[in-house]
This record gives sequence, structure tokens and C-alpha cells, in this order.
Amino acid sequence: MTDRVQEILSWFGSENPGVLANLYRMLMTGTLAGTGKMVMLPVDQGFEHGPARSFAPNPPGYDPRYHFQLALDAGCNAHAAPLGAIEMGAREYAGQLPLILKANNSDLLYSGEDPIPAVTASVDDALRLGCAAIGFTIYPGSANRNEMYEQIREMAWEAKQAGLVVVIWSYPRGSGLSKEGETAVDVVAYAAHIAAQLGAHIIKVKPPTAHIEQPKSGEALQKAGVKLDTLADRVRYVVQAAFDGHRIVIFSGGETKTTEDVLEQNRQIAAGGGFGTIMGRNSFQRPHDEAVKLLRDVMDIYAQAAK
Amino acid sequence: MTDRVQEILSWFGSENPGVLANLYRMLMTGTLAGTGKMVMLPVDQGFEHGPARSFAPNPPGYDPRYHFQLALDAGCNAHAAPLGAIEMGAREYAGQLPLILKANNSDLLYSGEDPIPAVTASVDDALRLGCAAIGFTIYPGSANRNEMYEQIREMAWEAKQAGLVVVIWSYPRGSGLSKEGETAVDVVAYAAHIAAQLGAHIIKVKPPTAHIEQPKSGEALQKAGVKLDTLADRVRYVVQAAFDGHRIVIFSGGETKTTEDVLEQNRQIAAGGGFGTIMGRNSFQRPHDEAVKLLRDVMDIYAQAAK
Amino acid sequence: MTDRVQEILSWFGSENPGVLANLYRMLMTGTLAGTGKMVMLPVDQGFEHGPARSFAPNPPGYDPRYHFQLALDAGCNAHAAPLGAIEMGAREYAGQLPLILKANNSDLLYSGEDPIPAVTASVDDALRLGCAAIGFTIYPGSANRNEMYEQIREMAWEAKQAGLVVVIWSYPRGSGLSKEGETAVDVVAYAAHIAAQLGAHIIKVKPPTAHIEQPKSGEALQKAGVKLDTLADRVRYVVQAAFDGHRIVIFSGGETKTTEDVLEQNRQIAAGGGFGTIMGRNSFQRPHDEAVKLLRDVMDIYAQAAK
Amino acid sequence: MTDRVQEILSWFGSENPGVLANLYRMLMTGTLAGTGKMVMLPVDQGFEHGPARSFAPNPPGYDPRYHFQLALDAGCNAHAAPLGAIEMGAREYAGQLPLILKANNSDLLYSGEDPIPAVTASVDDALRLGCAAIGFTIYPGSANRNEMYEQIREMAWEAKQAGLVVVIWSYPRGSGLSKEGETAVDVVAYAAHIAAQLGAHIIKVKPPTAHIEQPKSGEALQKAGVKLDTLADRVRYVVQAAFDGHRIVIFSGGETKTTEDVLEQNRQIAAGGGFGTIMGRNSFQRPHDEAVKLLRDVMDIYAQAAK
Amino acid sequence: MTDRVQEILSWFGSENPGVLANLYRMLMTGTLAGTGKMVMLPVDQGFEHGPARSFAPNPPGYDPRYHFQLALDAGCNAHAAPLGAIEMGAREYAGQLPLILKANNSDLLYSGEDPIPAVTASVDDALRLGCAAIGFTIYPGSANRNEMYEQIREMAWEAKQAGLVVVIWSYPRGSGLSKEGETAVDVVAYAAHIAAQLGAHIIKVKPPTAHIEQPKSGEALQKAGVKLDTLADRVRYVVQAAFDGHRIVIFSGGETKTTEDVLEQNRQIAAGGGFGTIMGRNSFQRPHDEAVKLLRDVMDIYAQAAK
Repeated sequence: MTDRVQEILSWFGSENPGVLANLYRMLMTGTLAGTGKMVMLPVDQGFEHGPARSFAPNPPGYDPRYHFQLALDAGCNAHAAPLGAIEMGAREYAGQLPLILKANNSDLLYSGEDPIPAVTASVDDALRLGCAAIGFTIYPGSANRNEMYEQIREMAWEAKQAGLVVVIWSYPRGSGLSKEGETAVDVVAYAAHIAAQLGAHIIKVKPPTAHIEQPKSGEALQKAGVKLDTLADRVRYVVQAAFDGHRIVIFSGGETKTTEDVLEQNRQIAAGGGFGTIMGRNSFQRPHDEAVKLLRDVMDIYAQAAK
Repeated sequence: MTDRVQEILSWFGSENPGVLANLYRMLMTGTLAGTGKMVMLPVDQGFEHGPARSFAPNPPGYDPRYHFQLALDAGCNAHAAPLGAIEMGAREYAGQLPLILKANNSDLLYSGEDPIPAVTASVDDALRLGCAAIGFTIYPGSANRNEMYEQIREMAWEAKQAGLVVVIWSYPRGSGLSKEGETAVDVVAYAAHIAAQLGAHIIKVKPPTAHIEQPKSGEALQKAGVKLDTLADRVRYVVQAAFDGHRIVIFSGGETKTTEDVLEQNRQIAAGGGFGTIMGRNSFQRPHDEAVKLLRDVMDIYAQAAK
Repeated sequence: MTDRVQEILSWFGSENPGVLANLYRMLMTGTLAGTGKMVMLPVDQGFEHGPARSFAPNPPGYDPRYHFQLALDAGCNAHAAPLGAIEMGAREYAGQLPLILKANNSDLLYSGEDPIPAVTASVDDALRLGCAAIGFTIYPGSANRNEMYEQIREMAWEAKQAGLVVVIWSYPRGSGLSKEGETAVDVVAYAAHIAAQLGAHIIKVKPPTAHIEQPKSGEALQKAGVKLDTLADRVRYVVQAAFDGHRIVIFSGGETKTTEDVLEQNRQIAAGGGFGTIMGRNSFQRPHDEAVKLLRDVMDIYAQAAK
Repeated sequence: MTDRVQEILSWFGSENPGVLANLYRMLMTGTLAGTGKMVMLPVDQGFEHGPARSFAPNPPGYDPRYHFQLALDAGCNAHAAPLGAIEMGAREYAGQLPLILKANNSDLLYSGEDPIPAVTASVDDALRLGCAAIGFTIYPGSANRNEMYEQIREMAWEAKQAGLVVVIWSYPRGSGLSKEGETAVDVVAYAAHIAAQLGAHIIKVKPPTAHIEQPKSGEALQKAGVKLDTLADRVRYVVQAAFDGHRIVIFSGGETKTTEDVLEQNRQIAAGGGFGTIMGRNSFQRPHDEAVKLLRDVMDIYAQAAK
Repeated sequence: MTDRVQEILSWFGSENPGVLANLYRMLMTGTLAGTGKMVMLPVDQGFEHGPARSFAPNPPGYDPRYHFQLALDAGCNAHAAPLGAIEMGAREYAGQLPLILKANNSDLLYSGEDPIPAVTASVDDALRLGCAAIGFTIYPGSANRNEMYEQIREMAWEAKQAGLVVVIWSYPRGSGLSKEGETAVDVVAYAAHIAAQLGAHIIKVKPPTAHIEQPKSGEALQKAGVKLDTLADRVRYVVQAAFDGHRIVIFSGGETKTTEDVLEQNRQIAAGGGFGTIMGRNSFQRPHDEAVKLLRDVMDIYAQAAK
């Protein structure tokens, strides 16, 4: 164990050793082991956006085991996926890499203004499948937010009892927000804070834009002289909003981008003190070897930042 | 134990010794120990108003442990916060001060006309984190009020079985009330009474204005010759409305004010027989030493009033 | 035990001895013990109408214990109040008079067209607090009536298992009725019948006016030659509607009246065979000694009627 | 309520108002109401010794309702009996006198060296039958004592939650003791203490003899100069052993005796500060009127002692 | 909080903050607050040895509240007693000192060769009575030991979930051991180790003699050159056996001794690094003021040792 990992574990004094052990595993796996940084491979896009949009660009990805292997090949800290996908690879890859069971999911065959995912897996599933963590999406800004918050309260309690890490995807969305507001820096910071207050160990948010959604938040930030010009600045603020950097905040990559865009984005995240990234489409939609290279290059960025 | 604390405990004849023991702890902790008065530090504003508005004015407050330490340094009777914040500091500060687990919370990323917070923590959480009390917000005036009342009925029952104190934040708000009515003296008194009837041991309300929202209440008060001119007068009436002063009614400070405004407000609360204050933004948004001084000065006011 | 009480108990052949024992206690307590008549003191007005309108006219009533003492001093059969008020006095007055735990309550800070109270107490609360009965309000005429009927079905079932008496406040109100219709004799009779059908042992209704809300009911009554001219006539009909007088139907007094009005109203109720009254504001808003005298005078009326 | 009853209730600060209300009823019922003394009628001998030995001497006693009536006629504080007998009379006598549901029983068709009764009724039974208390026998000295202690721990917890009084019959018996030791003063005092430690509100023991079973106890008593010559002396010591007189200790009458023996025994119990007696065979095996007279004479003794 | 208390708390990394908070309270209460040493007052001897042997030497001790007051007056860290005794004082002394609910108990009216206490209280009882800890006796050496180990496994799990400290009285006794072996140094050390392995936070053992019960243990100790000549030596070894001094091992005083014997014994315990003592008969069997003086003198010994 490195000093940094020890320091990170020390932030979770209310958790039992079982939670710490799984968090340790996630922090000590793969290329970034011991750095306190994390690059994860999430593949719930089949469920979230449909298989065509997700896997047609690189058809081997239709087989969930492809992603287990990709995560292993690239040295990711963990692989996150919905129930069925985890079930597909859990025996074959048992013990080979930390798994995050994505416990709620939305699909695009119905989409209301105020989203709420279905709860699609349980803590029992996570245990029987050998997962290190559960993942759960909340949509602050949705009229249905309370139901999601209450679901994760119960599930997080149960997960922690069982020694599982809790990862919250906190994605502002719904009738309470403008479209631009979903990635506004004040809103992303708020969303990260809500996830921390709900007891998340790892928080996934989107890279924040310079947009300000709530005027009073903007005023407070301006008055305090908080720099928000670059993505690195904004990442720094979002990390601060999650208990002053004492929760693990990682950033998702979003839609497919050029390699350089991906790298530049991660350079900014790393510069701002972000803990890492969870990169789906930009990895698994590339051919295998390209994906491995890209993931490795991204890991290099974080490895440098950790020094 | 002082005579006054013994007297206060005697009002709770239906509770078990476990509840009394935790109430005793809250009344016998800190600068005001034994006076029967209470000054508490609540920090749920990060969740309720967002991290920018809450912590940008004094950035050390992004770390929840800052508030544990501030409450200790100033000698507060207790510190109240949501689940994640309590989890952040509970091991480090275990046993050092009474904690109130705020068990429901709202955020501003969605706000309907008729508010209802999400239930974000449980009695089991309060026990595992070593809390002395649960805190719960109700919004009388909201179309969703019944759901909140029913949630706290169940949670209060469970808390009392487990020996925990029940603190209700009773904030009138929603489509049943005008904006001005939210702090109208008749409405605040009514809200304090509802909390008492729901079984609260400690009731937090806002300082009441001279506005009257419900004409019939106004007539009754006028006919009875109830003086409502000064804040002290109105506090006196609100305390009376909570079982003739036999429940612990404390007042929140509200938005940031000048030091003199805070002190004057508390002088009035103390003069009216209020049991104390729960002062968040006016303390933690000041620099640490200023905050400690202000909290101590406020405590002095109540200590004087208790003589 | 008197013959009359024995006769009344004989109407409840489906209830267990625990329910009968508590009903016996209510019928054998106070000034009217043994007569089969009941005068009760209900104090839920603080919750229902707010503390100002309820207690400003006689400020000692802000303390719930005042009402326990008033009920005892006057020799009432029972005292009804919400959870918090019962908790305030239950230890001090343990065993001294039958208590009815009012298990649902509304407040006036929000009022929709179709009322539904919040469930604010449970059968477990009634047992731990030593109550003889639970009280529950239904609003026939409200679009939400079914939810109330279903809540009391469940709670009544549980209460009867535990040997508790079930008292239903049946107050027609809501979008299904005109304002005048709320106390129309056909509606009040209908409401009493619904309460009886829901399994109530004691039914509280308002004194019916001569208004007829539902034409077909009016026709049927007219055709059958039912006399409805005086309040006594109408009370007789309402009592008949509740299983031909085999459920205990009592009448509430409503808003504050002159002493003579109160007495005259009760003379009519008694003359019509009503089982008694549950008199809140007309008692506790008078000074203590006046209230005791008035309650005693009302009891005299029923005592005479019982001969 | 008398001062003495108030004082007695004050000893049970850990119980809820429901328990106090039922204890109040037992203390405020019958001839000895308000004195703090109790004379109860227990009839479990049919189960314990068989119907012939129990009821042949006075055949009306074969009908359980005879005993309800006898207890009423004599003004007993309560009547205790097993499930079936309570079921036989509970409706007819509902509410007329406090009932103690004897919740475990032994029979003589099998008798091992180390007795343990069967659990024959539950807290749910007590509630549905309108009982004020459960009664439970423990046999300290039996190799099976632990099982009994653990049964009453669970049942007492449940009874107290439901507001029921807990009466423990503490009868030393079994292979750990000599026959003479069963009523030895040191053993009876020890048995009373065990019942108090198990959470009993009312403790029933046998009148102690001057025999000492455990030499070390004898030495301690002698060294302390405890007077044990008369039954009154020994009763005083047994009462002291039950939390220095702060639990209600009553004494059973045992086998049939002459009237004078019964009276003399109770004079001694009263002189020693015993709280009363629970007198079965010596009352119900006598003809009804003799039994009433004897019970009344015994009550007189306690009434005198209470002055 | 002192460094030493902080250090002690750091040994319990697998416990939640609730357990730490209660342990903190026990370590920060009374005369020895902050030293890391503990002197507790246990009074279960009434149950364990009978009231005569326990309380006849100092009769005020028959009232359980005497011991609450004695513990307070002397500044003990905690008071331990069975259910009934805790129920007797819990309301009056609510919050004033940490309470340990002794959850199993034996009596001497039956004593088999292989002892096993009855489980006489529950975690729910501890919570409703406001206790900081449960106490539980195991008898290693008894044929029934496994049942005790399994009972405490379940109860300790439940207690820790609820934030309660677990105190194990580990008293070797039963057919597996000679009488002399019960306090043999190898056996006492073994018993302390078993308690530590069962998850105890605080372990109570008897002062060990120089006797060796198990030859192989003796050989190992001799070979390793472990000094066992003085009580201080043996205490040092027993403390080492409990996770190298990282569990809180306290020593009981046993039967009544002269004051000098008590002091000398505690000097040895302190010299050997024992964490303190739990002293029943030697305190409560003395007159109150003598007892307070003795307890204070013993506390002085530990306070000196802590410097």
C-alpha cells in the first residue's frame, strides 16, 4: 500500500474494513495501482442508448466478455456493467479485476422529462457475482429525484453492511434544469456534493462547462474569486465541492471524441486534481488495440499527475 | 445535573431513559451546559442550497470536519448534518460532541411549489454513527405535508425505541401559504405546535415576523390581547404554542447578517424565553475565529437569560 | 356494571373481551359512569385549527396537561388528543382516565378541496401510552375518502386485536358535497352509517341540520314519514342510521357558543336519543371553573335522559 | 390517586405510561384501592394440582366464572388464571376487574425433579382478553431455571412494550435445593431478588420459614444482625431483598389452613411490610360467603397496616 | 480527548463510530477520565450470590439506586448491573454516567458442575435504558462454553451494529478445570485471549495466581523466560495475551478484603499495565464514605500509573 492509498482510505472512517478492503482493491489494481488515481471501463451504454449505437462501431463489444478483457488488457482499475453483462463474464473473469455492478439503468425506448432509472440489480447480486462495488445513477434536477435518493440510501446502507463500495453516477437532468444547466459548473459541483452527502465513496460526474445555472451560486463563486476559466479550474472546484477533495471524484468522457480531445480533456481533469476517468464509448467503440493504447495514454496522464 | 435540566427532562415522561440520556447529553454539553439553553451548529446548507452558496465564503467549510471542530471550539450543544457529512467526521470526533443526523434533505436543483425532502438517512445510521438525535424537516403548508408527517411518525417511533432524541425542523412553506406567511407569527406558532403534536422533543422554527397569515388566528390573538410587537413578544408566543413552553423551541438564524444583527436577534429570542438558536451560515461562513467569537457571544446572551 | 352498560356491550359480539374491557372503562368512568351516556373532552384543535384560535381564549390550555385535569375535574368519560399532547400527560395521569389517541390529524396551513388527514400515531403508540381507544377522522365526500377508509380498516383491525376501542370522527366534507350539505341530516346519517360499517364502536358526528343534500334520500325519508323538524328528531334519525341505535353515536359541539346554546343543543341531542357529546372548544376555551360547571350541566342533561 | 400509589408508581421510571396505567388500575381497584396493598385471587390450581384436589372441596369452583365473581364480590385487586379460564369469563366480566393472564403452567401428570412449566399463553392473548398483566412462574433451583428466565425476559419485554404489568411467581424448587430449602428465608429472599432483576413489577413468593439453606447467606445475615425470628421479621427481610422495598412483593397463602391460621399469617405479612397476598385455595375452597368474609378480613388487616 | 484515549480508540478500527463514541464516553467519564484507565462499579452480586451475602454488610445497597449514586460520588467510569437494577435507576440517573447492562446472569440456587448463565437482557433493553455497553459472562472450562460463546457472538454483533460497547467477563470455571486452575495464570491469560477473539472491547478477568494449569503452556512460558513471580508480572502477561495489550483488560477484586489488600492488589495490577479494576463487594459492602475513599484511593493508583 502506498501513502496516497492509505491517505484515501483514511477518509472513510465510518466504513467497516470490508468496504475499505474493496476500495483498496480498486485502488491497487491495474496500471494506476497505488497512485490514488483511477481509470475505469463502464459499459452500460447497451442498456442506456441501445446496442446499435453502442456496439455497431466495434462489433466484438456485443459480447460483454470483450469488455472484461479490454479492461484487463488496458489495466483499468475496475469494470462497471449492468446485471446481465456482469453475469455473462463473472465466472470466466472471477477475481481477475474489480467489478462494479450497475444497479439501476434507464433505456431510451421510453423517455420522460423527469428521468428515473429502474433498479435492475441488488446487493445480493453484487455479492454472488463477486463484485467490489455497486454503481447507482441519480438525476438531481428530476422531479423524481427523491425516489432515487431514497433508493440509494437503502441500497448504500445494505452495500456498506456487506462491505461493498458505493459508486454514484450523479447526472443532473430533468425539468428543474435547462439543457445547458446539466453540465454547468455550479450544477455539477452541487451534484457531486449531493452524492457525497448520500454516502458515496466514489462519485462520477460529467466534465463541467463554464455555464452557471443558478445565479446565486454564480454570485457566491465570483465573490469568493473562484477561478472557473479552464476545465482544470472547474474540475478543481467540483472536487472541492465533494468534501474538500475527501471523496473520490471521477469524470466521465461522454460522447465519442477524437483521440486528442480525449487526451486533452483528461490532461485538464488531472491538472484540476480529478481522481480519474470512467471512459466507455471512447474506448470500447475503438478497435481493441487502439482502445488499449488510448486507455494507457490516459493512464499515463494520471500517473504523471500523481507524482 | 442542574435543577433546570432536571425540570426539562421531567417534561418527557412518556419517553424511555435512553431518550432522556441523550437529551441530557445535549443539555449538559458545551458552554451552555446545565443552563437549559442550547446553541447548535447545523450544516446541511451544502445539500439544501448547494456548496457554492454555502462554503465559498469560507472555503475550509467544504470539509465536513471543519464544522465538527468549529462546534467543539465554540462549545455548541450539538452539531447537525446530513449522512455523508456525519460519516466524514464521526470516527475522528466519536463521542466528543452530540450529533444530530439530519435524516431528510432537499436540494435546489429541482424545486416544486410544494416541497418535500428526500429521506436520506435512517435510525440505524444514527446508531452506527453514534448520534444522539435524528433531525427531520417538515414543511407545513406544502401539499405534500402529510407524507412528511407520516414519515416522521414512523421514524420518530423507531428513534424513541432506540433511545434517540427527535428534532423537528418545522418550516412552513408551499402552496398553502404566501411567501410572507412563511414567517408570519401565527404560522410559525402553528408550525411549532404541529411539531410538538408529532412528538418532537426539540423544535426548530424561524424567527417570526409581525405578519399575520390567517385572519382568524389574528383575531383570536388580538382579542386575547397577546402582545406581538417585538421579536421577543413573538418568540414568547411561539414558545407558548409549543405546549406552554414544555417543549424545547429553538430558532434558526436564517441568511447571513451583520454581527450586530445576529446578536440583537438572539437577545430578542432570549428575552422572549426561546431555548436557543441553531446558527449555521452566520457562523460557518465567517472565518473560524470570528465564528467562534460570535457563537460565544450568542451563548453569553443565553447564559445571561438563564440566570 | 349497570344493565344499560351490559346492554351496550352486548351489541359488540364480534369484538374480543379486550375491546369490551376498554369500552366498559369508558362507559364506567366519570360523572356519567353506568348511564350509557358519554361526555368526552377532545382537544385536537391546536393541530386542526392552530394554537391561537384554540388556546388564546383561555391560555392555560396551551399546556396539554390542563386538559387531562379538566377532564378529570369535570368527570368526563374520556379525553381525546393527538400524539404529542398524550405524550405530554400520559405518565402524570397514567390510569386516571381513559385516553383516546387521535391517530390522524389535519392542519390549516394547507387545505385542499378534498381533505385527508395525515396518519400521526399508531396502535403501538396507543398501547405504550396506556390509551383505551384510537380515534380516527374520515371525510366522506372527499375524493380521498377511500384512502381514509382503507387506513382505518387496517388500523381498526390492529386496534381490535390489541383490545382497543375504535372511535371514528365521521365528518362529511370535500368536493362531493355542498358546504350546506356537510351537516345535512341525510348526509350526517349516511356518514354515521359509513362509520358503523367501517367497524367503529363509537361514532362522532356533527349535529344535523334540516337541509337535505341528496334528493333521493330526502324523498325516501319523506315517503316514510320520518320526522326531521327538530334537532331531536334529526338526532333520532342519525342514531337509527347507525345500526338502529346499536352503535354509540355522539355529537360534537362545534364552534364556541353561549352557555344556553350549548345546553339547548345537548337537550335536543339527549331528547333524540343521542349517546352524548364530545365538547372541546365550548369547554376548554372557558375559564376552568366555568368549563367544569358547563360540562357538569351537560352531564346532568344526559343523566336525566338516561333515567 | 393517593400519595402512596403515586409513590409506588414512581419506582417504575423505566416503564412506559401504558404499564403505569395498568399498575394504577390494579392498585386502585377493590377494597384496598389506594392503600398500596393488594389482595389477589389466583386460580391456576386446576392446572397445577388437578381439578379434583382443587375444586372438589367447593364444586362451584369448577366453573372459572365462579372465581371472577368471587374476586369481584370480595373486592380483590386482581384475578389471575390460565388461558382457558380467562377465556371462559373474559367477555362476561370485561373491564370489571384487572386480570392477570397466567402465561405458563405445570401439571402433575408428569413431574420431573427439575420443574419447568409450559408456556401456555402470550402477550397477544393478554391483549385480546383485556388483561392488565401477565403472570409467569420461575423455579429458581431447577436445572431448567435458565430456560424460564430467558422465556420471561422475552415475554416481559414484549409485555412492557404493550403496556402490560409483569407479575413473576418466584418459587424455588428443583434439584439445586432441599425440600426444606424451598421456603428457607435466605432462598425466598434470593428468589424475590432474582424476580426483581428479571424486571418484574409484582413478585409473588411463599412465606419464608426460619430455615437457612445456604450457610454463607446465613452467616451474612447473622453477622449483620438481621432479625429473622418471626414471620414478620422474615417478610421484612424478603421485601428488603427486592430492591429495598421498591418492588411490589406479595405472599401466597399455600395449602388450606384454618381461618385463624390464614389471618395470623397475613397479620405477620402485613406487620413485616409485605404488600399483600395472593390467596387461592384458602379462599375458593371455602363456600362462597365464607370465602368473601375471609378475603375481606384479610383485606382489613392490610388496610389497617397501610394507615 | 487525550492522546492515550485516542490511542486506545485507534485499536478498534473494525468498529463503527457509534461503538467508539460509547467507548469514548466510558474512557472520558469520572475521576480517571482521559487516563486510559478505568475503575468501574459492578453490582450483579445480588443475582450471582444472593442478596444476603451481597447487601447485608451494608444495607443501603439493597436499593439499586445506591450504587448509581456511589459510582457517581466516587467518579467511576461506569456502573454495571442486571436488567432490573438498571431499570430501577435508569430514569433518575439518565445520562449521568455510562451504564453497562449485564445481559446474562447466574444464581446460586442451582449450581451444576458446568456453569452457564441465563441470558437476562437484550440489546433492545440496553438501547431503551440508555446504556453505553452490554456485559456478558463466559465460563471457559465449562462443558457449556460453546453455548455462551455463541450467545455472545450474536449479541455482540447486534450490539456493535447499534453502537454499543461489548464487555466480556471471562471467568474460567467448569469440569474442564481444577479449582486452582480457575485463576492459574496460563488459564486467565487464555480466557482473556478467548474474550478478545470473541470480539470484546473490554475484558474482565480475575487476578491470576502463579499456578499453572496446563503443563504445555507452562513449558512454553518458561522456555520464553516469561516472568510470572509477582502479580504485576502475571498481569503484564495476561494483558499481553489480549492482543499484546490492545484490548482493555481490567481485573476484578473478588471477595471482600482489607483496605490494604485491595490497594496492594491494585498497585500490582497497575504496575503490570492492567487497565483498571471493576470493584464490587470491596466497595459497596463498605459504608458509603469509606467506599468512596477506597475507590478514590484506587483511582489514584491508576492515575499515577497513567502518568
